[in-house]
Amino acid sequence: MEIILADKAGFCFGVKRAINTAFEATTTGNVYCFGPLIHNPQEVERLRKAGVETIDDFSTLKEGNSLIIRSHGVPPSILEQAKSQGLKIIDLTCPFVGKAQRHAEALRDEGYQVVVVGEKEHPEVQSIIGYAGKNAVVIENVQDLDEVKLQSRIGIVAQTTQSYSNFSEIVLKLLSVSKELKVYNTICNSTTERQHAAQILARQVDVMLVVGGRNSANTSRLATICRQEGKPTHHIEVAGEIRQEWFQGVRKIGVTAGASTPDWVLNEVLERLQKNDISR
Amino acid sequence: MEIILADKAGFCFGVKRAINTAFEATTTGNVYCFGPLIHNPQEVERLRKAGVETIDDFSTLKEGNSLIIRSHGVPPSILEQAKSQGLKIIDLTCPFVGKAQRHAEALRDEGYQVVVVGEKEHPEVQSIIGYAGKNAVVIENVQDLDEVKLQSRIGIVAQTTQSYSNFSEIVLKLLSVSKELKVYNTICNSTTERQHAAQILARQVDVMLVVGGRNSANTSRLATICRQEGKPTHHIEVAGEIRQEWFQGVRKIGVTAGASTPDWVLNEVLERLQKNDISR
Repeated sequence: MEIILADKAGFCFGVKRAINTAFEATTTGNVYCFGPLIHNPQEVERLRKAGVETIDDFSTLKEGNSLIIRSHGVPPSILEQAKSQGLKIIDLTCPFVGKAQRHAEALRDEGYQVVVVGEKEHPEVQSIIGYAGKNAVVIENVQDLDEVKLQSRIGIVAQTTQSYSNFSEIVLKLLSVSKELKVYNTICNSTTERQHAAQILARQVDVMLVVGGRNSANTSRLATICRQEGKPTHHIEVAGEIRQEWFQGVRKIGVTAGASTPDWVLNEVLERLQKNDISR
Repeated sequence: MEIILADKAGFCFGVKRAINTAFEATTTGNVYCFGPLIHNPQEVERLRKAGVETIDDFSTLKEGNSLIIRSHGVPPSILEQAKSQGLKIIDLTCPFVGKAQRHAEALRDEGYQVVVVGEKEHPEVQSIIGYAGKNAVVIENVQDLDEVKLQSRIGIVAQTTQSYSNFSEIVLKLLSVSKELKVYNTICNSTTERQHAAQILARQVDVMLVVGGRNSANTSRLATICRQEGKPTHHIEVAGEIRQEWFQGVRKIGVTAGASTPDWVLNEVLERLQKNDISR
């Protein structure tokens, strides 16, 4: 069996920066992270052992405590609240997410109704929508547009990990109902490249393994893209989930990983496959 | 044989206004029109008889002479030249074309590279491009995009009589190569409605007649749209061109007309068909 690793699998720039800074921050004592730093339970556990405690509520923290804002960012109201509490903010918002926030804010200030193309419940989208004004809407797919009241001047930004095809389909639909559109394609290059590489690889192999957190939207989307290429695709978090029966009659296995999947998790999967050390 | 006239056939608002004002202007003496007022030779002849002389060059006119700027508009340099010559300007630029000019100018001032979706040689497009700055380009179809150097911030306007499908195809392609797009859909409602009505009618009939100037871009586009529906389509300027052999075995005839086709030309066609007074 041949094992082929996709180009651009694993940590992106924003995640790498967040993880490194979080580990560094623990050298001066424990730090708190508002929500899991990344959508990868294995890496979050490693961070916890080093002194990064994940919390859902920071209202009980004391003045001077360190609070990490994770790569997905937060709405401005949350940032204000943390500052007013006297917390020491370690802002690890991905610079590309920050750009989407600033574009949303500028579109709002220019009087556009802001459409954020993304997943309603995703923390990144919730952080962006916080900057987008009271008429802003989140649109996950083109059908969602039937449910919302649209104005004639529409500004568009995207969750940084959106698929381009979904984004462009929504832009095209909005073009048909508005007189003025201002569009910022804020999908990050790393996402586009990773999705494209996964798609190309899926076409060449018999089965795809997609490695990453089940709560990771970008990892799940990689799996969707591979399935759309008509290939059997398994989304796993760790090497131990690999099953022998997935590889019957298989000559080529493709492997990719989400932007929040650490190298050590990916390497364990690759080693397990190479040693053919697979549960039966 | 049943004869069905398309909704929205014939003069649009901008043309009607231009014709009426031109006729009114002749009550105080002869006036000059820079290029044919509309793309309809029959109506231009009627205007000529009333005292509207079509000219290609106004440099020999005298101070105080009346010069009509036709519905397609002119680039600002031409307008300045006419003013500096002391001519009395009768500006009949269609308000919708004026809007496209102003949007092109604003996009230029905001630092966008302006893309005008339209026909390179059409006077309306040449008037808009005059406001669009030195990096501006005219794009007729999606293939044209391969030939031009594009910047990352692109502003888009359309010739008012473009087909929406061509416009949206070009916007979609530009979305894939830029990080920021600002799009004004300046296709006028009258064009969209007329094209849509022609398409619907073409589906219901056995043959289509499209009435209007052969030099009229919007009339030619109506004929193209009807042919795309798979129906035999004849583009005629006057009733005398109708041929008996077009109607063998035909039960339903559809008729439409361009935005620059006067009612009297269209009515002559309809009367000829109703009387079955058709050349053999």
